[in-house]
Amino acid sequence: MKALLLVAHGSRRESSNQEVRDLAARLGERAGGRFGHVDCAFLEIAEPLIPDGIQRCIDRGAEQVIVLPYFLSAGRHVVEDIPNDVAIKQAEHPGIDIRIAPYLGSSDGVIELLLASAS
Amino acid sequence: MKALLLVAHGSRRESSNQEVRDLAARLGERAGGRFGHVDCAFLEIAEPLIPDGIQRCIDRGAEQVIVLPYFLSAGRHVVEDIPNDVAIKQAEHPGIDIRIAPYLGSSDGVIELLLASAS
Repeated sequence: MKALLLVAHGSRRESSNQEVRDLAARLGERAGGRFGHVDCAFLEIAEPLIPDGIQRCIDRGAEQVIVLPYFLSAGRHVVEDIPNDVAIKQAEHPGIDIRIAPYLGSSDGVIELLLASAS
Repeated sequence: MKALLLVAHGSRRESSNQEVRDLAARLGERAGGRFGHVDCAFLEIAEPLIPDGIQRCIDRGAEQVIVLPYFLSAGRHVVEDIPNDVAIKQAEHPGIDIRIAPYLGSSDGVIELLLASAS
């Protein structure tokens, strides 16, 4: 089973964390059965943290976990912090395939979304 | 003349700021003449800051400035800080129409981009 874990920064503003949870729920609806489990996790401040989010996917039976960074730029969080969290869980679970997908901001489609938003 | 100002948080990592500048340049190319000037500005840390970015648009002859928040969630920056910066410039320039477009994360198209990134 393949799981999708949307990973966001986490905010002191609980409504922002809730936005991420709602987005994960909509991702699950729109994924059309591609993933047996879709969830979200946070780098800091909010829960679950990334290691717990990955563990939750494994506990649900995932053999592959796609970690999807909901970030706009390749800052320290994307380049170091998320890979570090993933590496620790990967070492704990060598039989599970944990992958990090490209972060959202690297998608070329962002440009069209921005232009649509500006119109 | 209508100007588009992409507004990002600003990072201590200069490569992240450069990503935003590159994105603004690509937005300008893809906007197909809808805007007479396309630029970027930062809420903090990097330059130009938002008030200076708006001023630059006005100096180039903009009668309307669309401020486009390159943010994923409706946190304090989107809800308070950007509107505050815009309000100050709007008060200084009552003859200029300065508008804030919906922030990127509020776009429904984000879901499709995320699913494409996860595949």
